Amino acid sequence: MTASHCDTLVKCGVLVLQDEQRTVLRDAGLAVADGRVLAVGPWTKMRDVYGPDGDISGSSGAADSVGSPESAPHGPVAREAAAPGPKLLDLSGCLVLPGLVNAHTHAAMTLFRGLGDDLPLMRWLTERIWPLEKILTPELVHTGALLACCEMAATGTTCYADMYAFSRQSAAAARRVGLRAMPADGLLTSATLSYQGPEAGLELAETLIAEFRDDPLVRPVVMVHTVHTASAELIARSHELAVAADVPWMTHLAESRSEIERTRALYDGARPLDVLERLGALDERTVLVHGVRLTDAEIDRTARAGAAVVHNPVSNAKLANGMAPTARLLAAGVGVGLGTDGAASNNTLNMFKEMRMAAQTAKVRDLDPEAVSAQAALDMATLGGARCLRRPGLGTLAPGGAADLCALDLAAPGLVPLHSPVSNAVYAATGAEVRLTMVAGRVVYRADAFPHSPFPGVDYPALLEEVRAVRAFLLRRAGVVPTA
Amino acid sequence: MTASHCDTLVKCGVLVLQDEQRTVLRDAGLAVADGRVLAVGPWTKMRDVYGPDGDISGSSGAADSVGSPESAPHGPVAREAAAPGPKLLDLSGCLVLPGLVNAHTHAAMTLFRGLGDDLPLMRWLTERIWPLEKILTPELVHTGALLACCEMAATGTTCYADMYAFSRQSAAAARRVGLRAMPADGLLTSATLSYQGPEAGLELAETLIAEFRDDPLVRPVVMVHTVHTASAELIARSHELAVAADVPWMTHLAESRSEIERTRALYDGARPLDVLERLGALDERTVLVHGVRLTDAEIDRTARAGAAVVHNPVSNAKLANGMAPTARLLAAGVGVGLGTDGAASNNTLNMFKEMRMAAQTAKVRDLDPEAVSAQAALDMATLGGARCLRRPGLGTLAPGGAADLCALDLAAPGLVPLHSPVSNAVYAATGAEVRLTMVAGRVVYRADAFPHSPFPGVDYPALLEEVRAVRAFLLRRAGVVPTA
Repeated sequence: MTASHCDTLVKCGVLVLQDEQRTVLRDAGLAVADGRVLAVGPWTKMRDVYGPDGDISGSSGAADSVGSPESAPHGPVAREAAAPGPKLLDLSGCLVLPGLVNAHTHAAMTLFRGLGDDLPLMRWLTERIWPLEKILTPELVHTGALLACCEMAATGTTCYADMYAFSRQSAAAARRVGLRAMPADGLLTSATLSYQGPEAGLELAETLIAEFRDDPLVRPVVMVHTVHTASAELIARSHELAVAADVPWMTHLAESRSEIERTRALYDGARPLDVLERLGALDERTVLVHGVRLTDAEIDRTARAGAAVVHNPVSNAKLANGMAPTARLLAAGVGVGLGTDGAASNNTLNMFKEMRMAAQTAKVRDLDPEAVSAQAALDMATLGGARCLRRPGLGTLAPGGAADLCALDLAAPGLVPLHSPVSNAVYAATGAEVRLTMVAGRVVYRADAFPHSPFPGVDYPALLEEVRAVRAFLLRRAGVVPTA
Repeated sequence: MTASHCDTLVKCGVLVLQDEQRTVLRDAGLAVADGRVLAVGPWTKMRDVYGPDGDISGSSGAADSVGSPESAPHGPVAREAAAPGPKLLDLSGCLVLPGLVNAHTHAAMTLFRGLGDDLPLMRWLTERIWPLEKILTPELVHTGALLACCEMAATGTTCYADMYAFSRQSAAAARRVGLRAMPADGLLTSATLSYQGPEAGLELAETLIAEFRDDPLVRPVVMVHTVHTASAELIARSHELAVAADVPWMTHLAESRSEIERTRALYDGARPLDVLERLGALDERTVLVHGVRLTDAEIDRTARAGAAVVHNPVSNAKLANGMAPTARLLAAGVGVGLGTDGAASNNTLNMFKEMRMAAQTAKVRDLDPEAVSAQAALDMATLGGARCLRRPGLGTLAPGGAADLCALDLAAPGLVPLHSPVSNAVYAATGAEVRLTMVAGRVVYRADAFPHSPFPGVDYPALLEEVRAVRAFLLRRAGVVPTA
């Protein structure tokens, strides 16, 4: 049997497929062709079918070994494939998961990480964030987004949905690192840094969608800032644009009490979800970001409309907005993805933290230890995110899925023993055990090259220098003094 | 000026002292003598006072460099000090914190990590934990505790309080890794794995305290399991033992609804704290572990008695017990430490997760973004834990404090930029950025030696093999089938 178009063959210690049956394979092989998963199965079988002639077991041959091999940990060994046939990647000491989908972030806000914690919302905005955002430029946004993409790649995220000014910069950063991005400039009725008014905002969204129509990694989305900061016309027209372009339509919704109060004041007592319904903007392409304060009746209406929700438990807790009713959402059949929100309110873009927090907050919210299991949290971070973003090929390593994966080093003390791979991934992993991240068959992060060149597309030491310079510039220009 | 008794001089990129003023120094030096902090100050000054003759700046000389130096990240370089005078340790690319104090854990339960998640308490105990605990031996407990000590050292914990059967094994593991341990066999009225009844339990506690009287690292404590599983006599007599031996007296208290109900059923409606008060067991050496369900009045009584509380936010959330009223406890002046609880309910022993969760859950519990700041969370994990355990020299790097520290690599993407070192340590760090951990002036963990020999006292690859064998043995003997 030949399989000439397998271009990479991955040996996996443990492989979590996130297929329909939630299959977990030990000593598995994963064959990649043209950026997609060609086949999965027991390693011995996969080696026989797709491997080159000769021995390519974990400890010899031309394999590129990453992480600590299964039985006798030693330092990573990188060797170029000498044999003909597919490139071999030895992840036999690793737990391999589908790449994680960060379904909501503000990537460039990494620049503001740790600059305004533990403050009431209005002080945080007026004293910290707004003075800084006023002076942002496309170049600064690019630097922040590049740092964000590095952080995401290093913690196993392979696709992210982004809302921020100058979103073309986020797209550029994602391409440089090799991540999949679904960026948008947030649509508001007022002028923003990127455009002068709602007409220009809609035009920008349309332009971006067209510009990246054939891009292998970047697919812009449409995102309205909030119901109360966008006019009814902007909500309706932007939704029409999303329908016409066949992309997700997203908005922050039911995040905070004040958002709901402001909406009710503008719309004669109507709550944000009511407004979307009236404007025809609640359907299967609608993605509600946060949903902390959705009522039971609203959850049912969300389910009936086929809309999805992105849960951001770390940001919701840190900003003291509350805990979203995720167990209830899942029970109602709503698709739930996970997002980190921006680093200014998280303070990282690490989806492993988010998975753990999703499981923990659901339990403590409902005082129910069975609410949101480890598997349910992993589902949110993979299949759920893919559902939100309408990307059915993501979040799974079943054949036909995207060859997007991350590999956790099973020799990390916190991942030992390995009773349950899914539990260890959700409850025990920090995200820093990621040794390798792959997007569309291409390696975008290797821990064994840290800190010189862990990201093949990025001069990482130079980026760190640049962020230091940007930090000094921003603080000086904005007159912001950080706390100790 | 000479300073002949400085044995190690540490160059720190950023140094968080956790002194009374919560001083944070950049480009700092820390001089160590005989396991204690001799002096701290600007690097240039410390170098002049304590350094050997000749150049020992970060980039040259005989310094042992760990982590990614400040301005141009490159791989760690380990060199033996050739010059006379103190050993030099270059942590100029790192954020140096006092070693963290894990004020409550069940170390050996690392063996059960991920073996019973998302289950109601009684199913978890009867189907998973109890069948396994029945067959534990001192050897198995030693293996679990050794893994626990490795995990704690790798995530910056330098001192832990432990309650488990065969606690002498935890002490042995701590000594082997080089951590400070405060172990106890939990005291119950019924027989346990380690002793036959309450008299034998008290005797064991007394014996252990005497046995380690002069140990530099191990100081046993007295710990009662819970108010409802220990008789009134055992509570009173064990507290007398703690007073006589001058050690902390600890108990799980107000963790769950069922614990409070069981206590009320046994004690005519009295709640656990009432029982301690009546028995004379609530005073300044009393440590209440959990305190989730303490009422406002009980918080005031705890404060008046001078007792302390160990907060375990991750375990409390995961087991769906609730969120402890930490903002209220701190406002009342109660000393609050942080603990991970065991890996069966956490599922790690990583105090960085615990700090972040402490800040996040306080905010979302009280819907107050100012509740438990990053600094307050770091205080719990350092000074607060030291207060709980009556170890005033721990949790601070002020002169005279223990030379117990951990160093985070500031080149990790999630720690960039560095607006606020304390915020980054609490909200952004995963714990896996720790590059080096030191206890009493001795290095107990070096990330650059992972996975061969990161822990100087441990054959780590052999330990991983041993845990694998133990896992197989336990499951087979107990007939427990793990979930995927």
